[in-house]
Amino acid sequence: MYDIIIIGAGPAGMTAALYGRRANKSVLVLEAKNYGGQIVNASSIENYPGIEKISGYDYATTLFNQITNLGVEIKYETVIKINSNKEVTTTKNTYQAKSIIIANGAQNRHLNLPLETDFIGKGVSYCATCDGAFYKDKDVAVLGGGNTALEDAIYLSNLANKVYLIHRRDTFRGEEKYLKELETKENVEIILNSTITKLNGHEKLESITIQDKEKREKEINISGLFIAIGQVPNNTIFKDIVDINDKGYIVSEDGVHTKTEGIYVAGDTRVKDLRQLTTAVSDGSIAAMTAIKEMKK
Amino acid sequence: MYDIIIIGAGPAGMTAALYGRRANKSVLVLEAKNYGGQIVNASSIENYPGIEKISGYDYATTLFNQITNLGVEIKYETVIKINSNKEVTTTKNTYQAKSIIIANGAQNRHLNLPLETDFIGKGVSYCATCDGAFYKDKDVAVLGGGNTALEDAIYLSNLANKVYLIHRRDTFRGEEKYLKELETKENVEIILNSTITKLNGHEKLESITIQDKEKREKEINISGLFIAIGQVPNNTIFKDIVDINDKGYIVSEDGVHTKTEGIYVAGDTRVKDLRQLTTAVSDGSIAAMTAIKEMKK
Repeated sequence: MYDIIIIGAGPAGMTAALYGRRANKSVLVLEAKNYGGQIVNASSIENYPGIEKISGYDYATTLFNQITNLGVEIKYETVIKINSNKEVTTTKNTYQAKSIIIANGAQNRHLNLPLETDFIGKGVSYCATCDGAFYKDKDVAVLGGGNTALEDAIYLSNLANKVYLIHRRDTFRGEEKYLKELETKENVEIILNSTITKLNGHEKLESITIQDKEKREKEINISGLFIAIGQVPNNTIFKDIVDINDKGYIVSEDGVHTKTEGIYVAGDTRVKDLRQLTTAVSDGSIAAMTAIKEMKK
Repeated sequence: MYDIIIIGAGPAGMTAALYGRRANKSVLVLEAKNYGGQIVNASSIENYPGIEKISGYDYATTLFNQITNLGVEIKYETVIKINSNKEVTTTKNTYQAKSIIIANGAQNRHLNLPLETDFIGKGVSYCATCDGAFYKDKDVAVLGGGNTALEDAIYLSNLANKVYLIHRRDTFRGEEKYLKELETKENVEIILNSTITKLNGHEKLESITIQDKEKREKEINISGLFIAIGQVPNNTIFKDIVDINDKGYIVSEDGVHTKTEGIYVAGDTRVKDLRQLTTAVSDGSIAAMTAIKEMKK
């Protein structure tokens, strides 16, 4: 019997573990892949308060050391089921907890083009708020048609020299108010009915090749490509225990409560407006402190 | 004209500045005292994800450097008035902004006993969640009669060897459910009708002297005293512009919105459940990103 089982060893989950162990609770973290979550792909974090500059890997490793030094247990097992009795089943074992914190994050949807993964942190980004400042006064492109893409283009237009906004359809899915604002931005060029077919560059991204509906190709020189075609949470196994919205994110009340007593949610996997390290660690600490406060004896 | 004026240079305010400047917005931070806020009093922070151990002063200084290197302006002036046109008046000047973020924090209420300030971080603490883990297996006392004091005593009972809960009245103001839980804790001793009259120790806290209603004095040996007699926000000057609750905290919607368009709140000064570095930096980043998104041209 663990006081708290945390599903996911990203920043939100590891922060929940930190707060749980510091309160002297027994804590098990279950992680399907490696510790760190998405942040390990960040080559340089410069927007985390109190650390001037750190790689995502070093950040995750420091946090990992913080929690393992405190006696948090981590097992690399894939969770396949949880129930309202707070039993957690993995492909290997079943564990019993007094409370569960779901912090399994979300994956950025990729284009699955050659070089895409190689260029992450070298011109390819999935988060304008995180990485935009690295492209000050440079030429960048945003790919996507939803609110995130429109917001990213607006955000980047205040930073970059030029912003190409590329969308495969002839209209945007995002809200009118963002489109109106985009129209006032002289350094934004909107390219519709086009897809990206190639990423080009040596060592880092130097240009992209786009293709329109008539299969005409064109090369655009850019330093940064922001891929804003969505994220993929992975919450299907929790669907009987928590509420999930149409995009797959877990719905919470007061930030961390799910509809099931004793089961909490933290980080990117929940419905929220801003997915940043700052908000992940906030979620993690609140989820743990709430779980502790509400824990049955 | 500044894009964003931030009132208060604590972790929440400085994080808002970090996010504001990284989005290429002009940012002015107004601070009445020194940068850093309450965290500068923390001798050792060990519950901030990604930093194993740092002094509050070093943390604040790193964050200060992060924002000043980005071109955030800081002026040490006391704000005396703001209005819905986003004019900020200090004792020296008036500044115009497109948006204002109130992040002026809150002060811990002190006992005002000799040695109290000297012993902060050396046995005297105002935050069990922050500092409790430093007193594992030691004897500690909590002073106060509200929910915070009761919660602190419960929290510490899972960590410390012995917890004295001292309250000046004969009944607690806090909720029954916490009292019930406290009754089950064998290592908690409740001392009613008593006040602390002296803090004793060389270099660090070694004992406290308490006095009951009949003026009888008694010395209790403890390593840690958690003073939970409330915090004092300082929001009177904002009362016409934002909603303030009965304890003086600013009421927000969605975490950062006040009732006035373009005026946001972040950090300890707002009504919230958990006041930690993690939640302060989350507030700061959300407030800045929300201000940017809603900014009028």
